[in-house]
Amino acid sequence: MSDGLALWRDGPIKTAIVDFVDRVSRQESPQFVPPAQRIAVFDNDGTLWSEQPYYFQGLFLIDRVRTLAADHPEWTTKQPFQSVLEKDWQTLAGFGTKGIIEMALATLGGMTSEEFEHLAGSWLATARHPTRDRLFTELVFGPMLELLRYLRENEFKTFIVSGGGIEFVRIFSEQIYGIPPEQVVGSSIVTRYEVRDGKPVLARTSQLNFFDDTDGKPVGIQQHIGRRPIAAFGNSDGDLQMLEWTMAGEGARLAMVIHHDDGEREFVYDRKSPAGRADRVLDEASELGLTLVSMKNDWKRVYTFESQS
Amino acid sequence: MSDGLALWRDGPIKTAIVDFVDRVSRQESPQFVPPAQRIAVFDNDGTLWSEQPYYFQGLFLIDRVRTLAADHPEWTTKQPFQSVLEKDWQTLAGFGTKGIIEMALATLGGMTSEEFEHLAGSWLATARHPTRDRLFTELVFGPMLELLRYLRENEFKTFIVSGGGIEFVRIFSEQIYGIPPEQVVGSSIVTRYEVRDGKPVLARTSQLNFFDDTDGKPVGIQQHIGRRPIAAFGNSDGDLQMLEWTMAGEGARLAMVIHHDDGEREFVYDRKSPAGRADRVLDEASELGLTLVSMKNDWKRVYTFESQS
Repeated sequence: MSDGLALWRDGPIKTAIVDFVDRVSRQESPQFVPPAQRIAVFDNDGTLWSEQPYYFQGLFLIDRVRTLAADHPEWTTKQPFQSVLEKDWQTLAGFGTKGIIEMALATLGGMTSEEFEHLAGSWLATARHPTRDRLFTELVFGPMLELLRYLRENEFKTFIVSGGGIEFVRIFSEQIYGIPPEQVVGSSIVTRYEVRDGKPVLARTSQLNFFDDTDGKPVGIQQHIGRRPIAAFGNSDGDLQMLEWTMAGEGARLAMVIHHDDGEREFVYDRKSPAGRADRVLDEASELGLTLVSMKNDWKRVYTFESQS
Repeated sequence: MSDGLALWRDGPIKTAIVDFVDRVSRQESPQFVPPAQRIAVFDNDGTLWSEQPYYFQGLFLIDRVRTLAADHPEWTTKQPFQSVLEKDWQTLAGFGTKGIIEMALATLGGMTSEEFEHLAGSWLATARHPTRDRLFTELVFGPMLELLRYLRENEFKTFIVSGGGIEFVRIFSEQIYGIPPEQVVGSSIVTRYEVRDGKPVLARTSQLNFFDDTDGKPVGIQQHIGRRPIAAFGNSDGDLQMLEWTMAGEGARLAMVIHHDDGEREFVYDRKSPAGRADRVLDEASELGLTLVSMKNDWKRVYTFESQS
């Protein structure tokens, strides 16, 4: 098939994608969907790029906690900061996303949106993955980049719907995924418009505004997009409601779960994982009509830098 | 000029628009802006359609209060509801946008987003303007429709940034303005994802989520769009910060204030008006670099249904 999905192995998964796109985009199809309604949503961590040993934004926050620790002696006895400073990753993981939010509010509030962009942008431009010796932005999944392009070529509008910070994901979404900032939905902190040194700025506070995960994902979709997607891609329990919401609509639907079963090229994890835990999504996949994508069997390559096999 | 701005009279205002668009979109221009960054934001009430004798969404809420009054005997002595039931418009106007929010939370919570869409959609399809005997969606400004199209033809992305409810504006934004729901920013109430009768729904609560007016407009822009606009159009003090934020960026900028000075074809109002009050925006226009558009002098027609003069 000359469909731009060269990194997907021929088989039922690739066929399901191509068939779905054909059904909604061919004018004579009984399931035709007008281009304006061809909304496709993608989780980011574990769906478009890797998330092991921990969410990459979590690794950024760990670096921030270390950098600011000298000014915060109280962190040596205050969780989740203590576990970061003691490199006690098991304890840190136990705090889950709540721990990540606490670190984000404590280390990224106060500055302006512009300052945040510079700070996180420099980190992304230089920090390297702990075991892969690659920039984090190199650890994106080649088959998913193809899928994004393939959908856009068929007049889909592609959105990221991430549990991660909206301003963090926006830094690289356009360059890496071709998704502009206005098509990124994510978690956010309360921001205020104020004047600093005679210039208006957007100032980040230390208060959570919206947590775009689990139940929050369909809410974030409604808030930002205002219509129900017809296609959704995720990998963890954080995506369950977004996948369910997508499948519960009328007409042709496609909802896929990327299954991390490739220990050689990526990482093997699903149930009870500190990042990207996927218990419910695997248990309820067939009931909800979700399609499991095996990274090991359905993808010819995982990362684009891999040599052609 | 064959520029698609036929309803704009030749003169400095039309020239300012055409010059700005030329400067940012001509590849060889020193002020060239890549298409992805050509963000233009438009207030809705008083900028794209009329807002007299009162915000049209306010008129919808007044109808809602009347419809539900039988179930709420307490409203006969509780403001702002009392003033609605007594048709005491002066008192109602005194409650300002706070009164509108209270009415919205009391009369539009509890239902699902889909139910709201049906309810407000039916109202918009049938309710008529109190003095014009027209559907509200007919009272859109022809020159602004031309401007939206003209900007899009020059690869701008056009957004609505309204103090009104995001789900209300989305009902007609695509059909009337060619602006899809994902390009509408507005006020919102807290929405929850839940299951009703075995089906997942988005349920509106009675709690305010975000008030997209004054200081809130640049915040809403950052939250939904994630970049600073290069062009902004408003008409009232509610738009002041959005216009200021736009003009404070680097490079070519255009910020315009629609001045309601045409009593014959539309309505005359600006300072101390119950809807669309424009004291600060007029006082600070020259300091902020805002351009005043006279509806009377700069527009050949206001509404598209007017006979050609």
